[in-house]
Amino acid sequence: MDMEKPHKKLHCIEVCLTPKLFSEIQTHENYIVVLVDILRATTSICAAFNSGVKTILPVSTLDEARAMKEKGFLVASEQDGKKLDFADFGNSAFNFSREAIDGKTLVYCTTNGTRALEIAKKAEKIAMGAFINLTALTSWLIDEEKNVVILCSGWKNKFCLEDTIFAGALTEKLIQSGDFTTQCDSAAAALDLWRLARPDILKYIEKAAHRHRLKKLELDDVIPYSFSIDATQVVPVYMGGEIFDTQLKK
Amino acid sequence: MDMEKPHKKLHCIEVCLTPKLFSEIQTHENYIVVLVDILRATTSICAAFNSGVKTILPVSTLDEARAMKEKGFLVASEQDGKKLDFADFGNSAFNFSREAIDGKTLVYCTTNGTRALEIAKKAEKIAMGAFINLTALTSWLIDEEKNVVILCSGWKNKFCLEDTIFAGALTEKLIQSGDFTTQCDSAAAALDLWRLARPDILKYIEKAAHRHRLKKLELDDVIPYSFSIDATQVVPVYMGGEIFDTQLKK
Repeated sequence: MDMEKPHKKLHCIEVCLTPKLFSEIQTHENYIVVLVDILRATTSICAAFNSGVKTILPVSTLDEARAMKEKGFLVASEQDGKKLDFADFGNSAFNFSREAIDGKTLVYCTTNGTRALEIAKKAEKIAMGAFINLTALTSWLIDEEKNVVILCSGWKNKFCLEDTIFAGALTEKLIQSGDFTTQCDSAAAALDLWRLARPDILKYIEKAAHRHRLKKLELDDVIPYSFSIDATQVVPVYMGGEIFDTQLKK
Repeated sequence: MDMEKPHKKLHCIEVCLTPKLFSEIQTHENYIVVLVDILRATTSICAAFNSGVKTILPVSTLDEARAMKEKGFLVASEQDGKKLDFADFGNSAFNFSREAIDGKTLVYCTTNGTRALEIAKKAEKIAMGAFINLTALTSWLIDEEKNVVILCSGWKNKFCLEDTIFAGALTEKLIQSGDFTTQCDSAAAALDLWRLARPDILKYIEKAAHRHRLKKLELDDVIPYSFSIDATQVVPVYMGGEIFDTQLKK
């Protein structure tokens, strides 16, 4: 009689290319959402935790952000990529220096990221995914032993390349772990686009429409950092209204 | 003084990866929608015109389809890929032989395609795009001199690979004509995926989730035909409630 390995139950990966498609996902239980907004929210949130921020309170409207500022919180808030007057920071990753935020609580309002957090509320947990925490996030997801839905924020509900190639990079690492599988066309496409992009990510992303918008706003200094794989070891997770770094609780 | 060519005004290409994203398109005027549903509606509609059908009346509900059958029309109608009992045909391209439909009017009801027709109603014209009419469609679009929105039907509102690679193939041919440009991330992604798929489309499409669904329904005999580039010279266009072949009016 042959010795057979027991079949391991693999967890599923599904990629959602824009928040508007989240209502169509096929993964309905026991899942973690990985939120992705590479050129803004999720990279910046990882950068903030890397600079020692204690916790981040996401808010979805400017009124809430303004009210929190009046209560004395540090506030990051932008509209169409520009810092708003009342706020302490815009949401470029470079705003969050250790001097400015170490040990503090930060209120964070964005046009893209927080809307996606609202949409993904049914997930058991929502983790922040970015190239700068790719490996740390992968290890955490493997330990969690749940299905994974990768939710790309896109740009104003439209598909964007930079979030999609990150979805491909994360899908690849999860599948390589041997614990995950996927039957999702969006994941297959993301994987293919990531493999095309990987040899020279910055060159590949040149064609992304969003990048051109940032360039116009003179915010493109943050782009090389946004694609610096594993520049941090943080895994920020949203639970119960706040974001904290799971790596600090170990 | 140098002789300078006058700058030609290029028309824009935008790709919409699923009907659910159509409300987000940035092209708002002077555009033609190319509807794409490779493994069903648009390939089948091209095949029907290639077999001599005179006109196709698309309907969006089974009740309408049944009512038209009672009025004596030939009716194609399926649900989840299976022909319905009351109908004359399912919507596999192979149903539409010349003996069955030459010179006739066909009522066509599908779960995907007709819903997309409804969504795209604001376009000046809606053309049916498929690999089997790629070159004829491209020539017609060049002659029309309008912007082009390529609307992928997807599968139940989700992204699907086969429609996306067709969007890439059409984008490539339109750009090669010198009359079109694109600034759309979805078009850039579709183009890249098409270039990966082209050397062996059938092998590439093996991974498409939809293909696996067809295989289960034993309908996958139609797949090689669905990727037979330029098997027909028809350009079916929807205007005023009916679809006709523009190539016959010349």
